[in-house]
Amino acid sequence: MKTPDLSLSDLGSYFPDDFTPEQRAKAQTIFLKELAASSHKFYRGKTVTMPKAGIYGFNWFNVYYTPGVSMVSTTIRDNNDASFELSNRGNLVAVVSDSTRVLGDGDVTPSGGLGVMEGKAFLMKYLGGVDGVALCCNSYNKEGKHDAEKIIDFVKMLEPSFGAVNLEDISQPNCFKVLDTLREECDIPVWHDDAQGTASVTLAGLTNALKVVGKEMKDVRVVLMGAGAANSTIARLILADGADPEKMVVFDTKGGLHKGRDDVKADKAFYRKWELCEATNPKRINSEEEAFKGADVVIGASQPGAIKPEWIKTMAPKAIVFACANPVPEIYPYAAKEAGAYVVATGRGDFPNQVNNSIGFPGILKGALLVRARKITDEMAIAAAHAVAKYAEEKKGINPDYIMPTMQETEVFAQEAADVAMQAIKDGVARVELTWDEVYNTTLADVKEARAIIDLLQTNEFIKAPDLKMLEDARDKAVAAVK
Amino acid sequence: MKTPDLSLSDLGSYFPDDFTPEQRAKAQTIFLKELAASSHKFYRGKTVTMPKAGIYGFNWFNVYYTPGVSMVSTTIRDNNDASFELSNRGNLVAVVSDSTRVLGDGDVTPSGGLGVMEGKAFLMKYLGGVDGVALCCNSYNKEGKHDAEKIIDFVKMLEPSFGAVNLEDISQPNCFKVLDTLREECDIPVWHDDAQGTASVTLAGLTNALKVVGKEMKDVRVVLMGAGAANSTIARLILADGADPEKMVVFDTKGGLHKGRDDVKADKAFYRKWELCEATNPKRINSEEEAFKGADVVIGASQPGAIKPEWIKTMAPKAIVFACANPVPEIYPYAAKEAGAYVVATGRGDFPNQVNNSIGFPGILKGALLVRARKITDEMAIAAAHAVAKYAEEKKGINPDYIMPTMQETEVFAQEAADVAMQAIKDGVARVELTWDEVYNTTLADVKEARAIIDLLQTNEFIKAPDLKMLEDARDKAVAAVK
Repeated sequence: MKTPDLSLSDLGSYFPDDFTPEQRAKAQTIFLKELAASSHKFYRGKTVTMPKAGIYGFNWFNVYYTPGVSMVSTTIRDNNDASFELSNRGNLVAVVSDSTRVLGDGDVTPSGGLGVMEGKAFLMKYLGGVDGVALCCNSYNKEGKHDAEKIIDFVKMLEPSFGAVNLEDISQPNCFKVLDTLREECDIPVWHDDAQGTASVTLAGLTNALKVVGKEMKDVRVVLMGAGAANSTIARLILADGADPEKMVVFDTKGGLHKGRDDVKADKAFYRKWELCEATNPKRINSEEEAFKGADVVIGASQPGAIKPEWIKTMAPKAIVFACANPVPEIYPYAAKEAGAYVVATGRGDFPNQVNNSIGFPGILKGALLVRARKITDEMAIAAAHAVAKYAEEKKGINPDYIMPTMQETEVFAQEAADVAMQAIKDGVARVELTWDEVYNTTLADVKEARAIIDLLQTNEFIKAPDLKMLEDARDKAVAAVK
Repeated sequence: MKTPDLSLSDLGSYFPDDFTPEQRAKAQTIFLKELAASSHKFYRGKTVTMPKAGIYGFNWFNVYYTPGVSMVSTTIRDNNDASFELSNRGNLVAVVSDSTRVLGDGDVTPSGGLGVMEGKAFLMKYLGGVDGVALCCNSYNKEGKHDAEKIIDFVKMLEPSFGAVNLEDISQPNCFKVLDTLREECDIPVWHDDAQGTASVTLAGLTNALKVVGKEMKDVRVVLMGAGAANSTIARLILADGADPEKMVVFDTKGGLHKGRDDVKADKAFYRKWELCEATNPKRINSEEEAFKGADVVIGASQPGAIKPEWIKTMAPKAIVFACANPVPEIYPYAAKEAGAYVVATGRGDFPNQVNNSIGFPGILKGALLVRARKITDEMAIAAAHAVAKYAEEKKGINPDYIMPTMQETEVFAQEAADVAMQAIKDGVARVELTWDEVYNTTLADVKEARAIIDLLQTNEFIKAPDLKMLEDARDKAVAAVK
């Protein structure tokens, strides 16, 4: 049992040696949660606004504000595209949520999502050199219901101030209507990270997992557990990238999706789900037992415990299991491996093969922003997935415990950004054309600068290090809770 | 004629010696505008998002994001006030505008206001240690009209993410309805800087101007030119602070306000103006010539050229002239002084006695945020005015060319914040109670830290200095335009 240190590396070693793998996993989660509570209080949140223009005397405020700034106002008035150059709009993303489906916690009230959305903005800066603003909004209408129209209106009102919008943690079915309407009606990219983001990153992981086991996308039988925003979009992207719809079975809480599901057909709000009912599962398989038998791939985006070891035992050889529920997966990796899975991935950073959106959105958004894209097409999301997969394969070589690059691999974001930007140009949604190298180099420079600034602030103690006692307290609470 | 240098001090010396005062003033404005255009392009805007929590290894993202952050979400869900402590909400202000009345430029389209609103966020940080986010919103309704209800809805949706809202540059009459509704219905301060902010700072200046000329508020005859958001609120605060309504005449574009103005009475949207019709100008004075005769004070918040020298000549001895139209005042200071004015103030930082909102809102918002005020009352705005006036008097001694502190005087913001916070506690709108010293010291520390960080970024060239050529080009353009 090691003493926690500031690096937080090797988390497992913080706990008693006699902990079982399950106890250790639980203790890690509790430790991270307790440390989140104390560190957020210590720092009072995670993001601030900082100037990026120089002040060499107070008269500069007559340039940056009245009377000089008038020239900026009238220039943008006469040519709105100038706003991308004369303000920070060109690098700015609104992280918008109504906090109704926040990670594993569901509806946490609007303010409750601030920790997650500030975290997202932090990741955007650190991994993509992108500026994000956390906007957790109140989506209640006069009847006291969460209203898709309100979110749509809110984002449309925000549009003139941002280069892109990242929608996050909006419950279904609102999330589908919000995204599809806004993608159509906004002239900046509207990205639903839980849907497109998760799908893009999952596709990247699956691409490499299939390579590791020597199978091909068109041949594999795929089971998807859960039919929410994430899995519906994962299914769509996987199919667009070559999977055979006849070999796919998607489950929601009521069973398999297929043409006989009149309940899905009846509710227009679930039109995305109905598309899957029509396209997949021609045999109308309705039980997990049946679907798992001989399946090559299972992708979970549902609930803790939703994937049972006995089902995995019946899968085809070299089975691939993505258990991506967060923070507690459908099945823990050690249990999936015990049941015979060959490649296991989860949404968590404290296990191997993290299929985490963080490997996707910073690069995707950066690429879209740099060419001032009007939209992020599915083709751009697929291009990002291929960039990520290729990066992992070429840089390190892949194996069952390494199918995805980790967040530490800075260059992956630059490659993604460049591939996404090139696809945007190809798809006709870019406002400006840059070369692959220009996007790659700008992204890498911006990310490195962001990190260098953070390092500088830490070295100069403008960002103070927490006391080690904070870490030890969190560890002690975790041990006590699990014992 | 001096060569421009980075300090931008002594702007007047950049221009040919044979320029008249008017030419020099015009050239200064053009220089500042041209430099604004080039420097905004150079920096690509003025504000960014920056982390404020430490990263000592990538596992910290499992604390700041999933799975750890879940504890932050559920803690805030169960106690919404915790959002002020566990996120940056407690120090965060939304700078909201629909860009329909931006400084001297009117409706500049939503994105057109970004330069001004980012500038405001910059000032908040530099002068008040407050984080601001520029949100220029699209307020068009389906009929293509700017709609007060849309702005109201937008701000209410934003409320869960911010500690306060600063409304800015919204045209009338929408601005009145937006402010009054939101002040009533939001549980965080909603500050209309063009109205309450301008009024507070003007009251500070007037307080000291009256001391300089040895007159008292209750005795003076006051003329207000313009009856928009600024002057209506200036009238309200001046009256609340002891001025005699029978000695006040307010002009709008159609003449003096008084009980005979049926046009004002008829339009409910102008209820604030009607309040002034009922309270002031019992003699129903309708011409400027008559109103100025023997007046002690004139306050302009209207149009360039709206105050004529021949009117000033008829004012009482030691006349006070506030010509606050921006960027071109109702009358230039040299012309007002020539006509006999004793104290002259403008909205501009390149003349003495700048009555600029920047001396007010950073301290006022900081004080309100630190005690987590639910509102900013008129009494809090008056407390801020008195703090500013007192600071100028005590620290330097006042005279006709120094009635207001300048932005360089850092401590004034801390004093304002402390006085405003104490008034908030007195008025029963504070969520937490702090002592005067606590507010003063925190404000001063936060401001100093913000500036130290900016200095550090400049020293390390993360914020690069513009080339002197940029300044010279702006000067050359200004000289050519005026000659």
